[in-house]
Amino acid sequence: MNIEKLTDGILAGDYRSIARSISLVENSGYEIKKEIISRIYKNGNAKIIGITGPPGVGKSTLISNLAPLLAEHGKVSVLAIDPASPFSGGSILGNRIRMQANLSEKGIYMRSISNRLYNGGLSEYTWDITKILEASGSDFIILETVGSGQSDIDIMNIADITCVILAPGLGDEIQAIKSGIMEIGDIFIINKIDREGSYFAIKDIRESLNMSNKISTPVIGVNSITGENYDELVNNILKMEKKKGNDKYYKKLKMVIMETIYDYYSNYIDNINYGSRLIERDPYTVAEEILTRDSKKWKMGYNEL
Amino acid sequence: MNIEKLTDGILAGDYRSIARSISLVENSGYEIKKEIISRIYKNGNAKIIGITGPPGVGKSTLISNLAPLLAEHGKVSVLAIDPASPFSGGSILGNRIRMQANLSEKGIYMRSISNRLYNGGLSEYTWDITKILEASGSDFIILETVGSGQSDIDIMNIADITCVILAPGLGDEIQAIKSGIMEIGDIFIINKIDREGSYFAIKDIRESLNMSNKISTPVIGVNSITGENYDELVNNILKMEKKKGNDKYYKKLKMVIMETIYDYYSNYIDNINYGSRLIERDPYTVAEEILTRDSKKWKMGYNEL
Repeated sequence: MNIEKLTDGILAGDYRSIARSISLVENSGYEIKKEIISRIYKNGNAKIIGITGPPGVGKSTLISNLAPLLAEHGKVSVLAIDPASPFSGGSILGNRIRMQANLSEKGIYMRSISNRLYNGGLSEYTWDITKILEASGSDFIILETVGSGQSDIDIMNIADITCVILAPGLGDEIQAIKSGIMEIGDIFIINKIDREGSYFAIKDIRESLNMSNKISTPVIGVNSITGENYDELVNNILKMEKKKGNDKYYKKLKMVIMETIYDYYSNYIDNINYGSRLIERDPYTVAEEILTRDSKKWKMGYNEL
Repeated sequence: MNIEKLTDGILAGDYRSIARSISLVENSGYEIKKEIISRIYKNGNAKIIGITGPPGVGKSTLISNLAPLLAEHGKVSVLAIDPASPFSGGSILGNRIRMQANLSEKGIYMRSISNRLYNGGLSEYTWDITKILEASGSDFIILETVGSGQSDIDIMNIADITCVILAPGLGDEIQAIKSGIMEIGDIFIINKIDREGSYFAIKDIRESLNMSNKISTPVIGVNSITGENYDELVNNILKMEKKKGNDKYYKKLKMVIMETIYDYYSNYIDNINYGSRLIERDPYTVAEEILTRDSKKWKMGYNEL
């Protein structure tokens, strides 16, 4: 396989090269992934827009509407992280197919990946894929997660702007997770504002934000059928700054470094029969042994340990 | 501070030494924690019983009943991991105070810690504390979590036996998380079996377990007011084996090793101005640099980097 040709294809914005590279990053292990990413690392300058929120608030519909509006201001790509739940699998798939058809008609590239594929490394893979989309010339990358737990919050660290979508009439569960969600949101969107309870939903979110000293965070009520207030949403997204070069930007790159180091040591430990060490020594002592004596033998690929 | 005197106190089962050691493990950093744990690491032989399930199913009441029954077969300690949610904080606290009063009357040591205290290291601290309780002579350690996410599943890896509690009449959310919960449970408890819907709740769980090839996993309906079927629950807990020395046992110790290595590198990276490296080089290249060249400078305490 010619990686150089592939990354040239990415940089030229060739959809087949992009799709092939994403599949390689997903399936081909560390060495190939590293070769792809290191070749394209410095290219591109996209604004990553995270979209998260509980199931049923209309994220797919919102993205189907938002992506073409952003496409008036630059090249748009969409990356959707699908939940692994077997209970919602079918309906999600239907949504995805409709969304992809809708977007590709308008020349917008969309890819969806399952969050079940990865054991703990989901944020890293998500970063790899956004990097490929960025290098391919995307000005905006819309990154969607289902917003149901810590892993989604981790993924949202990759975004420059995190949009949290809620809808009127959701239950107590939302109250319970709100504290976590309130912290990560840069823009709050109340979808389905034609529905009963929308005034109170907006008021409730506004008050929670004010209590969290997030007084200038926008709360925008939209109607995805009529398109009401989408112009306000787009304007807010356009005026917010990218993180590139600031603390948050380096924090997400640190996440990639840490996941690489974690994977290395996890494999390393599995190869040294650590169980026998743990009969005589506590895990802290064993960790120190590994970090000092063993670390000199380090070689990526885990083969010569 | 005299750590040797403290760990002698733990080994003698002195409650003040146990409480003081747990506070030190929680608050005093790596070196003191390591000294305490390494001194007591080989002592004790407890069976750790994890209790998890959604809020409102009656976990605290069940533990208040179960602990004295287990105390007829050996020394019992209870460790409760409290949820951080500000919405349920008040009611949890009330529960804890009643539970602690109830248990201490019967000579059962109980400690509760908040899951908000730790950023990612919760499982490690939980392991440290169970280790102290084990070394103090506990034959049974009951470990309770609120069962609301991945971190609870991680904590349950520390248990020898994981009991999942559910109650009749819970909603769709439970359906959605069931697949994750079904996998970790060694015993399923349906509390409040006097309630309507209990027959179907038991049948539903039984069928889900059968579909997951967990045909021999017990499903026990209990009534925490009358004490019905608690004898069956106790018998099942007594007859299940400990993990000490098997694969699962080493897996949890690997988790402690990995968290130690992770913490070390996370601190290390923050101290090398990694941002400047990331302007020219991708994070995979920087990770490899850190693992090779930099690793020789390793020293616990992160000071001489």
